[in-house]
Amino acid sequence: MNFCSACGKPVSQKIPPGDNRLRFVCGSCQVIHYHNPKIVAGCIPQWEDQILLCRRAIEPKSGLWTFPAGFMEIGESAEQAALRETVEEARADVVLTTLHSVLSLPRIGQVYIVFAGKMLSKRFEAGIESLEVQLFRLSDIPWDQIAFTVVSEALQHYVEDVARGSFTLHVASVPDQIVS
Amino acid sequence: MNFCSACGKPVSQKIPPGDNRLRFVCGSCQVIHYHNPKIVAGCIPQWEDQILLCRRAIEPKSGLWTFPAGFMEIGESAEQAALRETVEEARADVVLTTLHSVLSLPRIGQVYIVFAGKMLSKRFEAGIESLEVQLFRLSDIPWDQIAFTVVSEALQHYVEDVARGSFTLHVASVPDQIVS
Repeated sequence: MNFCSACGKPVSQKIPPGDNRLRFVCGSCQVIHYHNPKIVAGCIPQWEDQILLCRRAIEPKSGLWTFPAGFMEIGESAEQAALRETVEEARADVVLTTLHSVLSLPRIGQVYIVFAGKMLSKRFEAGIESLEVQLFRLSDIPWDQIAFTVVSEALQHYVEDVARGSFTLHVASVPDQIVS
Repeated sequence: MNFCSACGKPVSQKIPPGDNRLRFVCGSCQVIHYHNPKIVAGCIPQWEDQILLCRRAIEPKSGLWTFPAGFMEIGESAEQAALRETVEEARADVVLTTLHSVLSLPRIGQVYIVFAGKMLSKRFEAGIESLEVQLFRLSDIPWDQIAFTVVSEALQHYVEDVARGSFTLHVASVPDQIVS
């Protein structure tokens, strides 16, 4: 951030009165610009003994696999965002069955809110952000071609949950996320 | 948003290629500025059969009650944010016991991530953003003086959980949040 989005004049980093963190503050109109973590809402869609993964068509990590997930938008709930991403990336209709993981990535300022979902039919196809979409048995997940550490972490928990026969919520911090 | 935070030139709202939503786009450097929901991380601190609430010293809703909660910062996890807010607003040390609620406020672009926590001692005092901090029995919660609808919703679920004897995660959308 170089300029104030309100008045267009230069900003500088300073700690505002009563605060304890560096913020971008406008030297002209004094507006404080806060930057906060973004939410990535996602869904692990299940069909019988398989889950649906997408091969990314966009950077970062184009060509690698993920479950449907993307930045939540203003005007929707986390659940709506997860459903929207599942339609956009995999053209799949799911019903969300449980909140599965809340995984924070402190270094890059993201929180993944990941639901488990049941596909309402076996229909799916690649959306514009996917090269291909495919059902995988849990024993066939392409672990060495997963796009992000946080996606691997959520999938590992999912596999453990299925092996144990019950879903439990996983809340964790994933410090080593590499984005590019 | 009136000006590009990268180059300082005016922005306008348009739908970028491949997108389907209006974004602020710089007419000069073409940077797209995304605005996404913010996370409010909070904790319902418990001491024996009571919970700890804070009376807000800041707007909006100064003078009304809430559990400790505030905007999550880049560089921390949701859990760390909830613990930090509990220290800042109520000077209380807690251990988080479970993720209790994930409540979306689509209209204002916020998601509350609320944990239940156990106080490690009965020590607490008002932080700078609180007028006072007080332990309440669940039957004495000041329902008509709660700051936000989303706080009432989380507290109602908490009371129901305690009555039932087990905590269950609540994921919901709270459409009627009034912020001022």
